[in-house]
Amino acid sequence: MKRLLLIEARLATMVPGGEPYGLIDDAAVAVEGGRIAWAGSRADIPSEWAGAERMRLGGRLVTPALIDCHTHLVFGGNRAREFEMRLNGATYEEIARAGGGIVSTVSATRAMSEDELVVAALPHLDALIAEGVATVEIKSGYGLSIEHELKMLRAARRLAAMRNVRVKTSYLAAHAVPPEFKGRADAYINEVVLPGLEAAHAEGLADAVDGFCEGIAFSPEQMARVFDKARALGLPVKLHAEQLTSLGGAKLAARYGALSADHLEYLDEEGVAAMAAAGTVAVLLPGAFYTLRETRLPPVESFRRAGVPIAVATDCNPGTSPLTSLLLSLNMACTLFRLTPEEALAGATREAARALGLAAELGTIEPGKRAELAVWDTEHPAELAYRIGFNPLHRLIAGDAA
Amino acid sequence: MKRLLLIEARLATMVPGGEPYGLIDDAAVAVEGGRIAWAGSRADIPSEWAGAERMRLGGRLVTPALIDCHTHLVFGGNRAREFEMRLNGATYEEIARAGGGIVSTVSATRAMSEDELVVAALPHLDALIAEGVATVEIKSGYGLSIEHELKMLRAARRLAAMRNVRVKTSYLAAHAVPPEFKGRADAYINEVVLPGLEAAHAEGLADAVDGFCEGIAFSPEQMARVFDKARALGLPVKLHAEQLTSLGGAKLAARYGALSADHLEYLDEEGVAAMAAAGTVAVLLPGAFYTLRETRLPPVESFRRAGVPIAVATDCNPGTSPLTSLLLSLNMACTLFRLTPEEALAGATREAARALGLAAELGTIEPGKRAELAVWDTEHPAELAYRIGFNPLHRLIAGDAA
Ligand SMILES: [Zn+2]
Ligand SMILES: [Zn+2]
Repeated sequence: MKRLLLIEARLATMVPGGEPYGLIDDAAVAVEGGRIAWAGSRADIPSEWAGAERMRLGGRLVTPALIDCHTHLVFGGNRAREFEMRLNGATYEEIARAGGGIVSTVSATRAMSEDELVVAALPHLDALIAEGVATVEIKSGYGLSIEHELKMLRAARRLAAMRNVRVKTSYLAAHAVPPEFKGRADAYINEVVLPGLEAAHAEGLADAVDGFCEGIAFSPEQMARVFDKARALGLPVKLHAEQLTSLGGAKLAARYGALSADHLEYLDEEGVAAMAAAGTVAVLLPGAFYTLRETRLPPVESFRRAGVPIAVATDCNPGTSPLTSLLLSLNMACTLFRLTPEEALAGATREAARALGLAAELGTIEPGKRAELAVWDTEHPAELAYRIGFNPLHRLIAGDAA
Repeated sequence: MKRLLLIEARLATMVPGGEPYGLIDDAAVAVEGGRIAWAGSRADIPSEWAGAERMRLGGRLVTPALIDCHTHLVFGGNRAREFEMRLNGATYEEIARAGGGIVSTVSATRAMSEDELVVAALPHLDALIAEGVATVEIKSGYGLSIEHELKMLRAARRLAAMRNVRVKTSYLAAHAVPPEFKGRADAYINEVVLPGLEAAHAEGLADAVDGFCEGIAFSPEQMARVFDKARALGLPVKLHAEQLTSLGGAKLAARYGALSADHLEYLDEEGVAAMAAAGTVAVLLPGAFYTLRETRLPPVESFRRAGVPIAVATDCNPGTSPLTSLLLSLNMACTLFRLTPEEALAGATREAARALGLAAELGTIEPGKRAELAVWDTEHPAELAYRIGFNPLHRLIAGDAA
């Protein structure tokens, strides 16, 4: 692959320990074979790069390409009518009777072919890519049968082939108990979640295993059975935990060395300590917090004190976060959760990479990592979190373009 | 101008009194000379339109083009550093000492030429237009001297010539007391606001007169002097009122037959009644509410009961609402203020037109109004407010395109 020297760049390398954002003014990045060979001040360009082909970036800001490490962007239907019913005063019972809630998304997803799911997901994926995202995590979890969970994962894999983007899949059959197993969560785990996981793994469809640990979904004990199977198959785990109540899900996840525990508004200090000890990333999802008008904030100060890495993602899903802007998630993380702009940007680059097990490959601008870079029409990286509903992306350098 | 028949459209006419959203399925719109000649079901297309040139819209949703009726999108600098300082724990005093706050925007705006202001504003304006906005209100208010207020308004007028968009200007010298008049608000009104208004009017730069009625800005008595001058010049008025406290600003505005009173979180019942009697539009600005993490909601239920028209706008400004997405404002109006999606969309079409004195020309799809239409890749109009950070605009038909 070709050698290329990016010059006239202001780098936010996101390498920790030095300047805020790892900022280097008047910098250059040497790219070879799709990887970063060197990055630093223009004054220090190694002599062997003096004659390389150059791309001038006009003084623009360059960050690692963004990573959305928690999405449910493959799904059928949408929930705009339900949104409208609720604002017109309908109760949850009325909405459920009208076929609303997650069940409506499950029905619509089951009714769609793999092709149709791909077509429906592309606009969401394209919206993310247009904002500089080069890696997206996509979960199953609206099929809730072996057939339809696998269909969702196949659709996610096909999206990766259709766009210049890396897709990491998470098998999330333990998202909700489907109507046909109502009141029989353990049977659902035995008959669908576990054999479905084996089938997904056999087909190479699952990069990780996820679940929803909550009173309205699965208990820590039930999730432990799913995680035991994941461990047996050699798959990493992650968990939706402590979003609405405190059940000890994050502690469970940490016990299994989870890549991440996600949401976490109701996490207690014991859970924070367990995550810190396990190196589990806290993935914050302010879009769901905003949409549900929650008031309990995740324990950000405790994460900082304990050294728990913090990531930020869209949680793109049709019910609680119909959000397709990772930049807006950064603003919400600052405005609603009081992250600093630097923490928010690290949360969509360095720490998001860690939440996907990709820290060795992505998330910072330093030698050896993949040359996946976002070039922005902004001066200072804080602007990326400060602006609301604005996309200053100049270009995305990723995959074939690098 | 040419005759054109738009067919295969789902119309959200926003004409009140019938179907929600004034919805007509399988509809057509006849356009002649830039105006709507006819709109209705395909089955009822008038015979004289049978042979006209047709544009097929593939079953897409068509709404009136959007109107952003409250922006401050001409300004110098940005306040990302201040945003960052605050999130890093700086106090308001420390930020003020570092040159932050509105004073920093005033300094940056004064330091820029008219050309530079136009260049800086274009990306904000283009972001709005990309979401289907064809009419934008733009305020002065960061010059705070006759010279620089007029410069801002001239920049706003030039924006209208550079893009296919209608700009309505508001003279907002009564936005803040500039440093050189500190503690002498009355002198500032006498020496700058009033003569500046005469000068702006003489040059045809002001379509309306606005002010900021608040303890930290101007009293109702001071605003009354500005409004008296506006009345003498035959200019309509509007007012930033009851955003942080209740001073009776909206009542004052109603007394002057104001087009709108804006913000209104702290409005009391007396103010609601005064607005209803005067036909003054309540312009809600959820972006500022969100950014400032306010908790007091505007009296939406009182507006409904009293029949006060409700509009929704971005309040695009560098300090309290660095927001350039009107669609996101619609979502925020629903999520945060509990407007229905229909109210929110009416607030960015029919009622926004009214807030700018353009109700006879714009804001609904009906014969006689201008053919300014937004065509969306969505099925149902509720989706426009439901999605977050997603732009489903297919095309904007406005001005020369119609
Ligand atoms: Zn989720
Ligand atoms: Zn304003």
